[in-house]
Amino acid sequence: MAKRSFWAWGMDSDEPTVQAKQEAAQRLSTIYGVPLEIIPNPRAADLNLKPPRIKPPKSLEAICTTDPQDRASHTYGRNYEDRIRAFNLDFPNPTDMVAYPRDENEITALLDWCSTTGYTAIPYGGGSSVVGGVEPPEDSEGTLTIDLSELNRLLEVDEVSRAARIQAGIYGPDLDSQLRPYNLTLRHFPQSYEYSTLGGWIATRSGGHYATNHTHIDDFVESVRAVTPTGIWESRRLPGSGAGPSPDRLMIGSEGIFGIITEAWMRVQARPRFRASAGVVFPTFEAGAEATRLIAQAKLWPANCRLLDPGEASDAAGLDGQNALLVIGFESADIPQQDFMREAIGLARQSGGTIDDSDIRLSDGSGSSTGREGNVGEWRNSFLRAPYDRNLTMGLGIVAETLETAITWDKWQHLEQTVRQSLHQTLTTLCGGGRVTCRFTHVYPDGPAPYFTFEGLGKRGSELEIHKEIKQAASEAIMSAGGTITHHHAVGRVHRQWYDRQRPDLFAQSLKQIKQTLDPNGILNPGILIDP
Amino acid sequence: MAKRSFWAWGMDSDEPTVQAKQEAAQRLSTIYGVPLEIIPNPRAADLNLKPPRIKPPKSLEAICTTDPQDRASHTYGRNYEDRIRAFNLDFPNPTDMVAYPRDENEITALLDWCSTTGYTAIPYGGGSSVVGGVEPPEDSEGTLTIDLSELNRLLEVDEVSRAARIQAGIYGPDLDSQLRPYNLTLRHFPQSYEYSTLGGWIATRSGGHYATNHTHIDDFVESVRAVTPTGIWESRRLPGSGAGPSPDRLMIGSEGIFGIITEAWMRVQARPRFRASAGVVFPTFEAGAEATRLIAQAKLWPANCRLLDPGEASDAAGLDGQNALLVIGFESADIPQQDFMREAIGLARQSGGTIDDSDIRLSDGSGSSTGREGNVGEWRNSFLRAPYDRNLTMGLGIVAETLETAITWDKWQHLEQTVRQSLHQTLTTLCGGGRVTCRFTHVYPDGPAPYFTFEGLGKRGSELEIHKEIKQAASEAIMSAGGTITHHHAVGRVHRQWYDRQRPDLFAQSLKQIKQTLDPNGILNPGILIDP
Repeated sequence: MAKRSFWAWGMDSDEPTVQAKQEAAQRLSTIYGVPLEIIPNPRAADLNLKPPRIKPPKSLEAICTTDPQDRASHTYGRNYEDRIRAFNLDFPNPTDMVAYPRDENEITALLDWCSTTGYTAIPYGGGSSVVGGVEPPEDSEGTLTIDLSELNRLLEVDEVSRAARIQAGIYGPDLDSQLRPYNLTLRHFPQSYEYSTLGGWIATRSGGHYATNHTHIDDFVESVRAVTPTGIWESRRLPGSGAGPSPDRLMIGSEGIFGIITEAWMRVQARPRFRASAGVVFPTFEAGAEATRLIAQAKLWPANCRLLDPGEASDAAGLDGQNALLVIGFESADIPQQDFMREAIGLARQSGGTIDDSDIRLSDGSGSSTGREGNVGEWRNSFLRAPYDRNLTMGLGIVAETLETAITWDKWQHLEQTVRQSLHQTLTTLCGGGRVTCRFTHVYPDGPAPYFTFEGLGKRGSELEIHKEIKQAASEAIMSAGGTITHHHAVGRVHRQWYDRQRPDLFAQSLKQIKQTLDPNGILNPGILIDP
Repeated sequence: MAKRSFWAWGMDSDEPTVQAKQEAAQRLSTIYGVPLEIIPNPRAADLNLKPPRIKPPKSLEAICTTDPQDRASHTYGRNYEDRIRAFNLDFPNPTDMVAYPRDENEITALLDWCSTTGYTAIPYGGGSSVVGGVEPPEDSEGTLTIDLSELNRLLEVDEVSRAARIQAGIYGPDLDSQLRPYNLTLRHFPQSYEYSTLGGWIATRSGGHYATNHTHIDDFVESVRAVTPTGIWESRRLPGSGAGPSPDRLMIGSEGIFGIITEAWMRVQARPRFRASAGVVFPTFEAGAEATRLIAQAKLWPANCRLLDPGEASDAAGLDGQNALLVIGFESADIPQQDFMREAIGLARQSGGTIDDSDIRLSDGSGSSTGREGNVGEWRNSFLRAPYDRNLTMGLGIVAETLETAITWDKWQHLEQTVRQSLHQTLTTLCGGGRVTCRFTHVYPDGPAPYFTFEGLGKRGSELEIHKEIKQAASEAIMSAGGTITHHHAVGRVHRQWYDRQRPDLFAQSLKQIKQTLDPNGILNPGILIDP
């Protein structure tokens, strides 16, 4: 059976070939002006994990495994640090065991077992966390990772309400395939889409591919069902409610500390048929930002509204490195989109954007494609390819990562400059320079969600220290400039120290009390969001 | 100084004249075929409240009052039961004292005093609750109502982000006036708008006048600040975030049990300039419902999309009583709305709706009005007038009330029939018949928010028993059909028994734990949402 790679993005078969790695090294050698030599991919056979400290009771044996590749691939998420450590076969604290429950009863049994023994239980969706969300805590005496991938069925479809009851362990592409016969889609496409799950999206308040209006998975949850150590949590399925504080909004974003989400009624979409897309060029990032502000505040609600700074526009869409690019997309199952696009283009031009009318792509779903040609198409392909590209550069000493936030319009320029400056400064000090780019991934009437990418050449073997210092300084910059430590990457273990400065103290105390109620033995993800 | 009427909707000066009441009685006599005699309005001088049981410490004397009219007008909200009791001078359990704090320090001092003495503290915005949200609990040994109306300032405006920091005690019209010089508006117009406050809207998850997309106040909250008995709760101001569960969503809808909301950063709107409005006529309510479903699912997001059944269309918009009316409105500060309206009308016609093109009203803000003419304008005036109309019929034996819910499209017809049947049945049994109408106040892609109005002629003196029985049966019908016990009227004391069947039990346990943390002495609104 095909297995997930324990270090690379994707399956074993996605691990890069020597040739692909050499080409990447060659390209980077040219960029950085130093020779770079590849080192071989690590092999599962070389994993040398310490023996598991826990042993399942007989009744749970059938769904538990201590296979080293399973344990290794479930120990880390997929951020820079995770991938470097995995590439280096560096697993000092692997999860002890992985369980694949097939229903809620088995989940209850697993949680009961952990509650009795005091072992740590780590809910695991697709493992694409970039914030240390699935990593075993160091002070645990035994960790069990609970992989939900067997809960992968579409259970019920309500076509008239456009809603579906879906098991939480389903992966993005599988969900889309199962909805396709109904001409429906959840249309939630985070960059991790291929290797993340519905339950993971809900637990982490994932950001999807709607750039405006309903950006987070939160907005698509009709009701949630979860197994907690003290019983079942299930909300009533409703299109809207004002009955007390929202129970769903407490479970959404709880990052596995209250319970294991097993299924949800989700609002789904008719598959879009009408599309309009355009790439508008701006002389500066600021001019483009002004256009996105006007479009967001005009409440045209484009499905896509992503602004790339000149660096990103060059890297990802083939522009000249001087101009910014605003990618605008509208789509609908029911209504031709040219009128909406015309208004958005009007606002973009008003802020100094240029685009030929002939470069606005329209589609009525009759077969002609759109959004897949020209600079917009280039950007789209590059977005989907990005996580795989990172597989190629492991071991070369490259330090690369992304950071994201959201901030109100009055403060965004200050934040952008502060973070950029911080990144440039630490890259210069630690890597002798590097590259920093920024895009807006989501846009609200009251502010954008800036997303930074940086890359530098560190010293092989010191990558993690360098990476940590850069990330630390940039996160400080985000916080001091008034941003959120995460707009859609979650908190996990990585963002915890900044999160603690962001949320109200009394809210943290409240979360602790809830945790006490739902998970009295503190077995679920101790240390995530609140102190154990 | 002008005072709020202790029984009628509005100020003392809004209390109806003998002539107006006689005209109303005459009209209803004709409808019900029995003579109806008015009885005089109650007078504040006749209030005979039991003496206050509490006495403020010297330091708080200046902001506290035990004036009988103040106490009486702060004892009840404004639902049917409240108004009948007040009209009858029936105040067996009045609040003991009303405080008007001028800042957070005074609120803290008041809460400290209550925490020490064990007196109950009742946060009070505009007192427009229709669910017993401001009524003193019966088993309290002393109640202090904290009226926030002195916290009525617009503190800060961020024009570029279209956001404003606003004190919680501000009334709707005052807020709108203060935002007007900036050409901004919160555009939150519940029917209670004139006598409800920002803090009240947030505490009760109020539904505004956007019929689609961002329907609840929840969506407009950027951050919240509250004084709890254990300290200040304040969230970071952000356009979007994915950092843990939303702290705001826990405070929004908490109905005063965790703390007193003192201010909030709110997302505001540029005042609309372009408008389009239309009233589409349908042969049946079901055909109109199908049109609203298509419009909601097409995500055209009209600002108004209210469907009136034939009864409401006749009462409120002058239709013939056979046809349903769908009121559609689009508006924007930036963009002409005719294209959006054309698409919505297209979908409405597809479901059997009829409207002449010449009856679609468009406005570019250049002076010509719209949405204030024809059947749409009639509906609008009647919406704003409704709470005052109820003043006229007090004491006539009329039993009248509204009920609201939300439900997914797959179940709405069953719910609508069940509730209608229940209302007709109890009205027939208890009043020998009566009138039941329904409209959709808000519409979501996955379901509508049906809003029922009923009226019958009860027996003078038995109105409350009759009302209670009707409300009880209809609420049971809503719950058994799968709806929410409230979409935007909150829970309060009235909906509590059904709320307890709706929310997850583990959520209620969580709320109790939070309450323990934030309000350890249980002084704030005991009995609301959870048991004391």
